[in-house]
Amino acid sequence: DIIMPEVFIVKNQLLGIDIGGTTVKIGRFGEYGELLDKWDLPTDKTDGGFFILKNIHDAVTQRGGWSAIRGVGFGVPGPVIGGIVQSCVNIGWKNLDIANEFQKLLKTPDIRVCATNDANAACIGEMHHGAAQGCRNIFMFTLGTGIGGGVVIDGKLVEGADGLAGELGHLVVDFVHSFPCKCGKMGCLETVASATGIVNLAKWHLVTDHQPSTLRQFTTFSAKRVLDLAKSGDAVAVQTVAEATDYLGRATAAVLLTLNPDIVVFGGGVANAGAFLIDQIAAKARIYVAPFAQKTPIVPAHLGNDAGIYGAAGLVR
Amino acid sequence: DIIMPEVFIVKNQLLGIDIGGTTVKIGRFGEYGELLDKWDLPTDKTDGGFFILKNIHDAVTQRGGWSAIRGVGFGVPGPVIGGIVQSCVNIGWKNLDIANEFQKLLKTPDIRVCATNDANAACIGEMHHGAAQGCRNIFMFTLGTGIGGGVVIDGKLVEGADGLAGELGHLVVDFVHSFPCKCGKMGCLETVASATGIVNLAKWHLVTDHQPSTLRQFTTFSAKRVLDLAKSGDAVAVQTVAEATDYLGRATAAVLLTLNPDIVVFGGGVANAGAFLIDQIAAKARIYVAPFAQKTPIVPAHLGNDAGIYGAAGLVR
Repeated sequence: DIIMPEVFIVKNQLLGIDIGGTTVKIGRFGEYGELLDKWDLPTDKTDGGFFILKNIHDAVTQRGGWSAIRGVGFGVPGPVIGGIVQSCVNIGWKNLDIANEFQKLLKTPDIRVCATNDANAACIGEMHHGAAQGCRNIFMFTLGTGIGGGVVIDGKLVEGADGLAGELGHLVVDFVHSFPCKCGKMGCLETVASATGIVNLAKWHLVTDHQPSTLRQFTTFSAKRVLDLAKSGDAVAVQTVAEATDYLGRATAAVLLTLNPDIVVFGGGVANAGAFLIDQIAAKARIYVAPFAQKTPIVPAHLGNDAGIYGAAGLVR
Repeated sequence: DIIMPEVFIVKNQLLGIDIGGTTVKIGRFGEYGELLDKWDLPTDKTDGGFFILKNIHDAVTQRGGWSAIRGVGFGVPGPVIGGIVQSCVNIGWKNLDIANEFQKLLKTPDIRVCATNDANAACIGEMHHGAAQGCRNIFMFTLGTGIGGGVVIDGKLVEGADGLAGELGHLVVDFVHSFPCKCGKMGCLETVASATGIVNLAKWHLVTDHQPSTLRQFTTFSAKRVLDLAKSGDAVAVQTVAEATDYLGRATAAVLLTLNPDIVVFGGGVANAGAFLIDQIAAKARIYVAPFAQKTPIVPAHLGNDAGIYGAAGLVR
């Protein structure tokens, strides 16, 4: 006879953890990949991010515990090669073997720990549970404060030799305005098409054009305000969005002709503007690649802010 | 006892066949991938390329025969998906199941037949026997009359959903001159950086600039002449090559940030200008992606015109 322990817990849950510059998102997933629980922690950036992993470990201990967890996946804001975080400028990490460090906290090697770049994680999330379900070759742009990207070929993540695959946010596309980028260059896609970039472009038009605009009432404004005003026909906002989507269209064209993927997905906060934004990007991308790849779906992400936790969990097999 | 036939021939040879718009290159390869024999046929474009496969079959029958051949690989000038040639505008093929058609001529299904795009084949050739040996993630540009490209990820060819992966020749990069492209658009990379493109740019400078140039002595000239004159310091030729390599540098930057490959290889006739050309492309690409991917090797192909036959044979396993 098999003697069962008094409490027998099957280890069939995964944690997906999306580490951002401001918050850490934690998701607990069940046997079939279903989201059981999710919550946020503030990202503690003191001492070069030294406390982040400990805070995550403590938070899970207090909320649900570790007994059912068979694996943990991390999405981090920086390049990762083979599970080793190369650098996360925003939070201070450098050359961090996250699996090794986290297993020290877990005091067991029995829980599998994986890590990749946050945009890569989002791409995996959209493949498993979002807009790219059923696709094996995927490019995903994440449009937020910056611009990231993820690449999946034949169902597998492509990290690239330096963990930079998908990082088209730092492709120089703008030779007109030449806004400075935090990478040190000028004219990167990120400087004209991220949330920051949309604000850059709008401010530039407010100064150089004489078109009327509700934006003139504000000293500072967000990309969301520009996008909302563009929807309602504000001249400067419309012009700004037309330019930002043109740059994104060119970057998408480069992706279509480099990888010719099954689908291109746009996620991240800016992509929440939805079809209004994505349809303009798609129309421009198709002009730049005509007569080729006219039918590649170019679509908004489905999972919103949860793509990262879904995908991080999806890293663990 | 095993009864051996009187003449027992081991089937351990491969044919690599590179079909171009003007010539068909045929290579016979031995057990270890070594080139045993190679020769050319003219490409017979009559009746939509109907006779090309029969000509190849006859040529091999007459030169070495079929008894030792275990497989045949084709590189063709157009998109191929899973062995089906989608279209080859230059030679008239459309929706051709090349394996099926060629096996009808062979009258046996025992010889394996594979096919891919010619630039993809060249990329495989450089991976197996050329500049990209030991690399698993490769991008290759082929600079000839047009511009093609091949992508290898994790050691495997990426054809793309429409067989278009690598076709950056049709990315719109030039918003200044807007030369017409045979694809119907204007300003494609091919219109400013292929052999045709280099001539386009040089002619444009001869008309719009007033700099002295030996090119003014000719009514027509080749890209090779422009490249040779650039090496000797001719002002218009130097300017032309500076611009062409700048456009190629931008396209290379897009590749570096999309795939972050282990290596980028430049092949095709124009790349025969060698380090003079490639070093300018590499320098510009590195500026456009700085501070990222600064160490990715950007190198000339090693196999020259033989890359296609090596790679076509390499398709067969």
